[in-house]
Amino acid sequence: MPGKNPREFDLIEWIRHNPQNLPPSVLMPIGDDCAVFDPRFASRMTVTTDVLLEDVHFRRRWVSSYWLGRKSLVVNLSDLAAMGSQPYACLLNLALPGDLTGNYFHSFLKGFLEEAERWRTPLLGGDLSNSEKVYVSITAWGSFKEDRHPVYRSGGQVDDTLILIGDVGFSRLGLEILQQEDPDRLWEITDEDSLASWSGDAFRFRCLKAHLLPSPLIPVGIWLCENGLANSMIDVSDGLATDLLHLACESQVEAEIQIDSLVLPEHNINQLSALEAALNGGEDYALLLSASPEQVERLSATYPSHFPPHRMIGKLSQGKPAVYLKQKDERQPYEPSGFDHFK
Amino acid sequence: MPGKNPREFDLIEWIRHNPQNLPPSVLMPIGDDCAVFDPRFASRMTVTTDVLLEDVHFRRRWVSSYWLGRKSLVVNLSDLAAMGSQPYACLLNLALPGDLTGNYFHSFLKGFLEEAERWRTPLLGGDLSNSEKVYVSITAWGSFKEDRHPVYRSGGQVDDTLILIGDVGFSRLGLEILQQEDPDRLWEITDEDSLASWSGDAFRFRCLKAHLLPSPLIPVGIWLCENGLANSMIDVSDGLATDLLHLACESQVEAEIQIDSLVLPEHNINQLSALEAALNGGEDYALLLSASPEQVERLSATYPSHFPPHRMIGKLSQGKPAVYLKQKDERQPYEPSGFDHFK
Repeated sequence: MPGKNPREFDLIEWIRHNPQNLPPSVLMPIGDDCAVFDPRFASRMTVTTDVLLEDVHFRRRWVSSYWLGRKSLVVNLSDLAAMGSQPYACLLNLALPGDLTGNYFHSFLKGFLEEAERWRTPLLGGDLSNSEKVYVSITAWGSFKEDRHPVYRSGGQVDDTLILIGDVGFSRLGLEILQQEDPDRLWEITDEDSLASWSGDAFRFRCLKAHLLPSPLIPVGIWLCENGLANSMIDVSDGLATDLLHLACESQVEAEIQIDSLVLPEHNINQLSALEAALNGGEDYALLLSASPEQVERLSATYPSHFPPHRMIGKLSQGKPAVYLKQKDERQPYEPSGFDHFK
Repeated sequence: MPGKNPREFDLIEWIRHNPQNLPPSVLMPIGDDCAVFDPRFASRMTVTTDVLLEDVHFRRRWVSSYWLGRKSLVVNLSDLAAMGSQPYACLLNLALPGDLTGNYFHSFLKGFLEEAERWRTPLLGGDLSNSEKVYVSITAWGSFKEDRHPVYRSGGQVDDTLILIGDVGFSRLGLEILQQEDPDRLWEITDEDSLASWSGDAFRFRCLKAHLLPSPLIPVGIWLCENGLANSMIDVSDGLATDLLHLACESQVEAEIQIDSLVLPEHNINQLSALEAALNGGEDYALLLSASPEQVERLSATYPSHFPPHRMIGKLSQGKPAVYLKQKDERQPYEPSGFDHFK
């Protein structure tokens, strides 16, 4: 009860005891029927929502609640970045088994609010419930500066170059490691050094980190948008080939990936090849964009050196929406097998 | 895959085949990484989110998916109404067991989108997943006309009159009927006439309808706000006494309910008294507000006859935040036992 008997498991009390930095446009952060903000600072707003479900999207024994809290928010912010928008605020619905309302809940919120602070995306409300499994549902809002417009999936033009920023395939290989080895103490790990030493070698560490604690390319998406450097953009969350097909369908163009231009993970994991993981893996949170020759020129000339490398991996051309893979002189239509929870 | 092989269970495809009325400020309704809107039409925006979890908030055998879809949206809109805001748009995260992705999914969405259309709250996106149980998470946001301000819980003033609009207690009594009788075919019912005939008498029907298909007081909340008729307001979703305590705490006042002024359900159900159901029931979606003498006068003089009756049920006064019950001349402090999923 607000102001009366603060309960352990109370989102509002938690936030009241862990004050956040709020932009002046937030008028009522939390504790009423709704949060309230004055939206007139923004010319456009974006909104996105995503869920993370135990035993569908993650296993509790493979990830600490602290990292789960961090990942939950950043996968939503990745969608904001893919439109080029600046994160603004978020809401959290969290359902937990009754025995997780102590430490598990607190570590989750700690991780969540650290990322919220890092990306200036204050938590403005939410709902807590009891459930048999952990269920996380997040909504995030973003905004644009006055003269900027969202970068849509549908903006791709014939003769655009396809540019990929960020890694693909590592996350899926990390999941493969987890599925094969089913480690039972990984949930204790809450820092990268411990994960590195648990992993045993640098490649396994890179794969596991990509899966358990992805880094969203938020500043990259904003920079591309603010400088008008992309005709279309999407974040790679369902697999490179699937997300490229989304972009091709929305833009009504044909898309071709030059296989040799992809920087693939150095190794396969078990039977899963690096190429398969890169094309159909999912959860990469890389940015895939298309740019005109003029945009490519400016992008290459001004690309900040502290951003992850950008790579030209293919092109868009006139034709029925579809994805083609090209290797040497051979060109094959490709049917992505991407991510589908109901398959 | 958008535009390629439309899958049965695909929110985006579903919405593309069931076009919605969209306000001109919605720039990208669905099908990209985010929805996009131009918020500059609004001086304030409200946001709220809520979940409905199978076996926590509802049982699948007690409610049709069509009614569940309707209720899911309206309980969120009730929060918007409690601030006085006009619903603007919503997002839906839905997780379902694999065997419910056919008819169950379609009926749910049909109900959801009918209410969305009714209250002009288009669905702008969401996420679908697989899960063992049905999980519904909704985010809704609303807006205010230029010169209007939200009605907060914290605006209550000493000497305000407490006004209740809508019924309390019936929903909890309806739940009591369901818990006692555990009907196994109620999920087949999708219209009020069938529920009425299943119920057997008018009182049981009223209780069951209040629980299964509540009517949010959206036009009432907007009208109160637009006419400046409430100092504070909250929607009664956790029980009248609990929600009044919230209001008292946020407003830093003492609150008193005059028991005899409450219009209670005519009967008890089993061991559950009508008074207990009214004070601690929850899920009523009535509006509880406080108004100054001047506001009370204007409210009474102009109250639209097609709204549910408004009743003066108590007052706010100076004192430590708490709830008192008054009957005849006796006045007792009251500790609400309201709703807590973890109790």
